[in-house]
Amino acid sequence: MADGSDKEAVVRNKQVIFKDYISGFPKESDMAITCDENMKLKVPAGSKDIVVKNLYLSCDPYMRLLMKTNSGSVWNPYTPGSTIIGVGIAKVVDSGHPDFRQGDLVLGKTGWEEYSVLKSTQGLFKIQHATDVPLSYYMGILGMPGLTAYAGFYDVCSPKKGEFVFVSAASGAVGQLVGQFAKLMGCFVVGSAGTQEKVELLKKLGFDDAFNYKEEPDLNAALKRCFPEGIDIYFENVGGKMLDAVLLHMRVHGRIAVCGMISQYNLAQPEGVHNLMTIVYKRVRIQGFFVADYHPRYSEFLDFILPYIREGKVKYVEDIVEGLENGPAALVGLFSGRNVGKQIVVVAKE
Amino acid sequence: MADGSDKEAVVRNKQVIFKDYISGFPKESDMAITCDENMKLKVPAGSKDIVVKNLYLSCDPYMRLLMKTNSGSVWNPYTPGSTIIGVGIAKVVDSGHPDFRQGDLVLGKTGWEEYSVLKSTQGLFKIQHATDVPLSYYMGILGMPGLTAYAGFYDVCSPKKGEFVFVSAASGAVGQLVGQFAKLMGCFVVGSAGTQEKVELLKKLGFDDAFNYKEEPDLNAALKRCFPEGIDIYFENVGGKMLDAVLLHMRVHGRIAVCGMISQYNLAQPEGVHNLMTIVYKRVRIQGFFVADYHPRYSEFLDFILPYIREGKVKYVEDIVEGLENGPAALVGLFSGRNVGKQIVVVAKE
Repeated sequence: MADGSDKEAVVRNKQVIFKDYISGFPKESDMAITCDENMKLKVPAGSKDIVVKNLYLSCDPYMRLLMKTNSGSVWNPYTPGSTIIGVGIAKVVDSGHPDFRQGDLVLGKTGWEEYSVLKSTQGLFKIQHATDVPLSYYMGILGMPGLTAYAGFYDVCSPKKGEFVFVSAASGAVGQLVGQFAKLMGCFVVGSAGTQEKVELLKKLGFDDAFNYKEEPDLNAALKRCFPEGIDIYFENVGGKMLDAVLLHMRVHGRIAVCGMISQYNLAQPEGVHNLMTIVYKRVRIQGFFVADYHPRYSEFLDFILPYIREGKVKYVEDIVEGLENGPAALVGLFSGRNVGKQIVVVAKE
Repeated sequence: MADGSDKEAVVRNKQVIFKDYISGFPKESDMAITCDENMKLKVPAGSKDIVVKNLYLSCDPYMRLLMKTNSGSVWNPYTPGSTIIGVGIAKVVDSGHPDFRQGDLVLGKTGWEEYSVLKSTQGLFKIQHATDVPLSYYMGILGMPGLTAYAGFYDVCSPKKGEFVFVSAASGAVGQLVGQFAKLMGCFVVGSAGTQEKVELLKKLGFDDAFNYKEEPDLNAALKRCFPEGIDIYFENVGGKMLDAVLLHMRVHGRIAVCGMISQYNLAQPEGVHNLMTIVYKRVRIQGFFVADYHPRYSEFLDFILPYIREGKVKYVEDIVEGLENGPAALVGLFSGRNVGKQIVVVAKE
């Protein structure tokens, strides 16, 4: 709640601005670092706004979709000349909202800037920081990627012990968890990734096998080698050619959970997928999902995952970049696969 | 059961032979009419075979898929030089199987010929002919197309009153029933078909609207006109361009039941479908299904549908061709849309 003091604290606020709608791969130069010289840290009397200091910012593939006007008519695209918006961890500096107080740590949509004014509390969670885990985990394994993997695997994939599971973009923020959840369930799990380093990482995380899709001349042959008996569950993060190849290897009553299709986000026209008749032949279910639909189950998820983290049974790999000014490069790097694990930008430590 | 008589009845048996694997649209000349001069009507002692006289044969789109070697590795393709196999209604002439007796009417897989020897009873149903409905109905509304529409709509589509439903190939054996079931459920239903005659038929059957896809220069515009608020349920019979267009009009949590993709069966390479990211944006479920998985619910289905038929609340349009020798033209006609309603070939009246 605003404390009613007359003096208004004003600070400089460094920001990452989205310049204009783009086509093709995003570049650092599509964003600009600017500074608001007159950022007020006090909430005006009577307002329900919340002013936060941003600590960690999340780089997520879906953000590329907001850089074009036709983002599927579900999400609002970015506004040229305004700050990039994404998920972040922030500390409340001042609040006019009764549910949030100065000093609270929050997780939710915020701006790519040092300080933000949050005008909606929709999807804003108060973090009860379990101090034996890093705060950054609330952006990854304990945040939206974690809940995405949890809901996507346990709910959307309807997994059963012993099933054959394939995860694409498997070392990413979500994929690395899906693979570990599948192992906990007693499944056979293979992941694909884009470098040998990531392939080795997946094996260390307990994946039964992994392959570098960039070095496989024939995706069909790679899938046949890894899944001679076919695939029961495909956790889809990439789309395009990979989906087309996977379809041919699906088993009867297989399930495909579609979390995203990162390979398609930079294309003007998405690639055509040809092997959809497999859906009939094998009675396959393809289900798209959004983590936002699972927000009500966030606390249930925390109760599930925290013990596994503490016992060392589930691990999480983060790629942490320091400094807001390095945010654009980190975001752009998602699309060349530069990051290893969950990509995070540190704006401030506290 | 074989009656043990020594004299074996032998008849001429007219047959439709599948010549060889094909590409492109099937032609009448891909099949040949031949005659087995020495068809034995008695089951050998000790055999569990069943000899049947075929009455009605069903023309179904999936049969095209069996005319190529790579039929999805689930179904066995036809054997060049052997009779076409399909669903038929037949009368048992002699039986070595304890569950079937001379005079029984059966529904199941049989040959395109006057008499067949059935070596398996899997998927073979004994027809309890409700004599106030035509026997041919057991090939359509009371047979596999009926069960397909029932399972596909009520089970796979998870429909709710007031939802917006689109059916492609809507005047076909399955589509016409899906539309009527959707109306019974209180949905808004639009169908697409390939002639103006079929469009009028759909309106007579109670569809809220219908369009001739061959006369729509822009499928997107047609769908936008018919579904300004979008589509909750798409019952997919055609695939390809229609699926791609429909994806753009799906509503949040929409469902697509994939029954078949007839537009793709004659193509060497199926068309690419580009708009699959809609699955994520709108959290769409796409589910393929096979009627065979629902065979255990066949009697439940009959209990459901017979009262509607008797009360005139559900109607069924058949396209009946007389004579086995006209079977190839009837089968081929499915792919040009020649038939109006369920395509049936009458081999014998009783």
